[in-house]
Amino acid sequence: MGQTKYTIGIDFGTESGRALLVKVEDGEEVVSSVYEYEDGVIDEFLPGTHIGLEADWALQNPADYMETIKRTIPELLAKSGVDPQDVIGIGIDFTSCTMMPINKEGTPLCLIDKYKNNPHSWVKLWKHHAAQPEADRINQVATERKEKFLARYGDKYSSEWFYSKALQILDEAPQIYEAADKLIEAADWIVLELTGKERRNSCTAGYKALWDHDTGFPSRDFFRALDPRFEAVVDEKMSRNIYLLGTKAGGLTQEMARLTGLREETPVAVGNVDAHVSVPAATITQPGKMLMVMGTSICHMMVDKELHLIPGACGVVKEGILPGYHGYEAGQSGVGDIFAWFVENCVPSRYFEEANKKGGDIHRLLEERASLLKVGESGLIALDWWNGNRSVLVDADLSGFLLGCTLETKPEEIYRALIEATAFGTYKIINTFQEAQVKIEELYACGGLPERNKLLMQIYADVTNRTIKVAVSSQAPAFGSAMFGAVAASPENGGYDSITEAAKRMAHLRRQCFVPQKENHQRYEKIYHEYERLHDYFGRGENNVMKWLKKIKKQIKE
Amino acid sequence: MGQTKYTIGIDFGTESGRALLVKVEDGEEVVSSVYEYEDGVIDEFLPGTHIGLEADWALQNPADYMETIKRTIPELLAKSGVDPQDVIGIGIDFTSCTMMPINKEGTPLCLIDKYKNNPHSWVKLWKHHAAQPEADRINQVATERKEKFLARYGDKYSSEWFYSKALQILDEAPQIYEAADKLIEAADWIVLELTGKERRNSCTAGYKALWDHDTGFPSRDFFRALDPRFEAVVDEKMSRNIYLLGTKAGGLTQEMARLTGLREETPVAVGNVDAHVSVPAATITQPGKMLMVMGTSICHMMVDKELHLIPGACGVVKEGILPGYHGYEAGQSGVGDIFAWFVENCVPSRYFEEANKKGGDIHRLLEERASLLKVGESGLIALDWWNGNRSVLVDADLSGFLLGCTLETKPEEIYRALIEATAFGTYKIINTFQEAQVKIEELYACGGLPERNKLLMQIYADVTNRTIKVAVSSQAPAFGSAMFGAVAASPENGGYDSITEAAKRMAHLRRQCFVPQKENHQRYEKIYHEYERLHDYFGRGENNVMKWLKKIKKQIKE
Repeated sequence: MGQTKYTIGIDFGTESGRALLVKVEDGEEVVSSVYEYEDGVIDEFLPGTHIGLEADWALQNPADYMETIKRTIPELLAKSGVDPQDVIGIGIDFTSCTMMPINKEGTPLCLIDKYKNNPHSWVKLWKHHAAQPEADRINQVATERKEKFLARYGDKYSSEWFYSKALQILDEAPQIYEAADKLIEAADWIVLELTGKERRNSCTAGYKALWDHDTGFPSRDFFRALDPRFEAVVDEKMSRNIYLLGTKAGGLTQEMARLTGLREETPVAVGNVDAHVSVPAATITQPGKMLMVMGTSICHMMVDKELHLIPGACGVVKEGILPGYHGYEAGQSGVGDIFAWFVENCVPSRYFEEANKKGGDIHRLLEERASLLKVGESGLIALDWWNGNRSVLVDADLSGFLLGCTLETKPEEIYRALIEATAFGTYKIINTFQEAQVKIEELYACGGLPERNKLLMQIYADVTNRTIKVAVSSQAPAFGSAMFGAVAASPENGGYDSITEAAKRMAHLRRQCFVPQKENHQRYEKIYHEYERLHDYFGRGENNVMKWLKKIKKQIKE
Repeated sequence: MGQTKYTIGIDFGTESGRALLVKVEDGEEVVSSVYEYEDGVIDEFLPGTHIGLEADWALQNPADYMETIKRTIPELLAKSGVDPQDVIGIGIDFTSCTMMPINKEGTPLCLIDKYKNNPHSWVKLWKHHAAQPEADRINQVATERKEKFLARYGDKYSSEWFYSKALQILDEAPQIYEAADKLIEAADWIVLELTGKERRNSCTAGYKALWDHDTGFPSRDFFRALDPRFEAVVDEKMSRNIYLLGTKAGGLTQEMARLTGLREETPVAVGNVDAHVSVPAATITQPGKMLMVMGTSICHMMVDKELHLIPGACGVVKEGILPGYHGYEAGQSGVGDIFAWFVENCVPSRYFEEANKKGGDIHRLLEERASLLKVGESGLIALDWWNGNRSVLVDADLSGFLLGCTLETKPEEIYRALIEATAFGTYKIINTFQEAQVKIEELYACGGLPERNKLLMQIYADVTNRTIKVAVSSQAPAFGSAMFGAVAASPENGGYDSITEAAKRMAHLRRQCFVPQKENHQRYEKIYHEYERLHDYFGRGENNVMKWLKKIKKQIKE
């Protein structure tokens, strides 16, 4: 029994941190532990103050991250009774781009009295959207300068990404920018804290900070064009040393060993991002297989040997997901969110009463009723843009759309039409990948939705005409991080020599997969044809009514 | 007091008959009486039998009409204490085209044992929609023969109208067609029963049976082309003697005097149709003023000196609404119906709970919340085709449409967008009239909606940029019929010599009218521009996705 080895994965999410202790030999999930962040998402006032935040701000407190480490790891050990000597590695993943300014000692500026009352000293969470003017500037300058890198990011740099946030600090709080020894992704900061070593990972560098494996970062000229003070941002505030996924960042420091109960020098993998680390957790280690991380939104992840530029994808990064491959990311900005909106705002009380009687939840009742409908029977079609379109149109100002209503239209019909619309959205992404020569043979799924809604999964299989396999782990990011922990450990310490090997042994799929039904697909193909036509009509400039309405709305609200 | 004269109007509706006793001198509504039809709308089984009806059938029992007479008139007299000698006239109006086969004695065939088990012997109600194949044939033949009359009906003869229903009887029950001495509108049948005289009115003849004041009915050639047995339908089953609105049909028979308690020979006006008779009830007796009869749907009625052909209007008939004028009719097939659908299917329980707390109904709560929104603030736009489009596209296969949804969209925003969509629908009709040189300066309203929803009325005023005046009578059809009863009586019996004179004395408007707000109209004008573009895109063949979806749905249901 003493020979059984374990690894720990920690997933730092938006509201909480989630740790998992996993058996190295077969991936069995032994115990898990969750820590809800005390300060959660900070979007009104700085903690303990009356210092208010402007609209679109979203911050976090890095103390919550350290607290996650201090609480969850000891709990894993206590609950499992596992000997710390048998924990051979640790991996972590984070939301991204979630970044912060730190001083020379690695201390976040927001934890230093001198800076803590300035909002810009805090962690800017991935969904901090207040850096849109800076993103606009980046896109304008990059377009004017015909920077080639933009094509790898669907021709658009996001307000959520690293330089938008860094520039916002420079624009609005130059003293914080000046005071910062470094600007760093939270994923890399946690690794720095655990190991004492700055080991910036290739995933966040590639997807959020325009780093390319072969050509490095954008030129100083480009950064100077954004702002003369920004010219040396990489050398002064970041680092050109980027560590590939699957490498060991270092060993646990004495201090961290003491805090966690693990042994000193326990190997720690370089940081990773939640959606990206889920790819091997779903058994994917090669091209042709696309992972859908399905929750409030969907991230579509896959790898390919070749570099292909895909219009409207979120990013293609060599060494960004799996070693030796180009990693591709795309996404839909609203999926589970849309169903939640519908249930909250559009379902009459008699449905809730019936759901209560059946002891189930409202989604189950709607699913049950919607599953009685045949393809096309509702007569409805929708565009899934309630939260804008992330791929392939990359346009936050698009909006949701429902067509085909009659006086007989029922809530479950609308519910099904919304599910179908999100499935068409995924199909559109798949087809866009295929047209760019990135072949997709199978779909894989993880996240909250596949467990909860079988009708949804079947509709996705039918619409896309592809079998969908589902990861066993209901905590794919933490699980994937644990796998990378085993790779960081290396075979001589009982781990694996590659993530491919780790995936073979540790990652598993559920027995039940979703197989497309031919007749349904043929019918959906026709409806999808209409979806595509509406998608292009409203999304590609022929009729800009959605953007126009949002503009009017914004003007009125101001 | 003995000199005060009264008149009675009876409105025969879909579910009930409604009678009103009105003072001739000033239009004061003295008492009213309602009779709910025992058999109501017959759409499943013939009364008292297991004889089932096919889909889209809708029948009535003429015994319910007679019962209305027998119950309501005595009740009016009893409740008011009015001396029957002081009741100087009677007018009636009916839904239309509501028609039936009768024998030589005027008895409906469905009341005769020999025929009563054949559904075709019963009254076909206006919303009997099973004669679509016959309507298609009429349109095809009329188009092939380039019949000029079609242009007066928006280029489309409806399945609801007279010859569609008559042809269906001939097609499916030739023995009933044969046995019928006459086919007659219920409006004219009631007058026949009251007076013993067949006095077919110019309104139903014109709007439903292709009669024209100057040229009469279509040619025998046309009817022969539909079916050789149909060649002489007008001469054999109808009559070429058409009586203009405002004329006296005759006096009450002895038998009817006995049944009602009124005096023998009480003057009875020729029959009329509910929406049409409401025009003078809303004080309108001249061009430039459009009446909106607002309820589950909207009928738009007006008159003009000239004949103008309006694309997609329901009909233009000389002498069809007011003597000496061409009467114009258009309509929206779903208005109040859409709001009722929304409340029934799309409003969450917390809204009902709040409405209950406030002691008001749900519509009032939604109206209250929606009225806090500024024009354009919802970011939504809708097409009001939940029940198809009656004017100006005349296409039942169009469907409802909502655009602009976000995760923040609230029920009251959708509610307001639906109201706005119906207002845009009315504005589109107004603009179509204007383009055809029928000028509309003011709007008038009657029906259930103007009383219940002030926000809706204000939106209609703002969208159309026209003042809306509202009829005092909440029972405009019965009131209008009473006015025509006063005209039938003529001045020598204490009545009026014209409907214009009657309107001047009897019809009244509420003090409160709805005045367009300039700023709102200017904003709506821009949104309407977008509405029109979507209207044409989905409604005029550029994108036929609505029709295609309905086709698919139909195929699946079959």
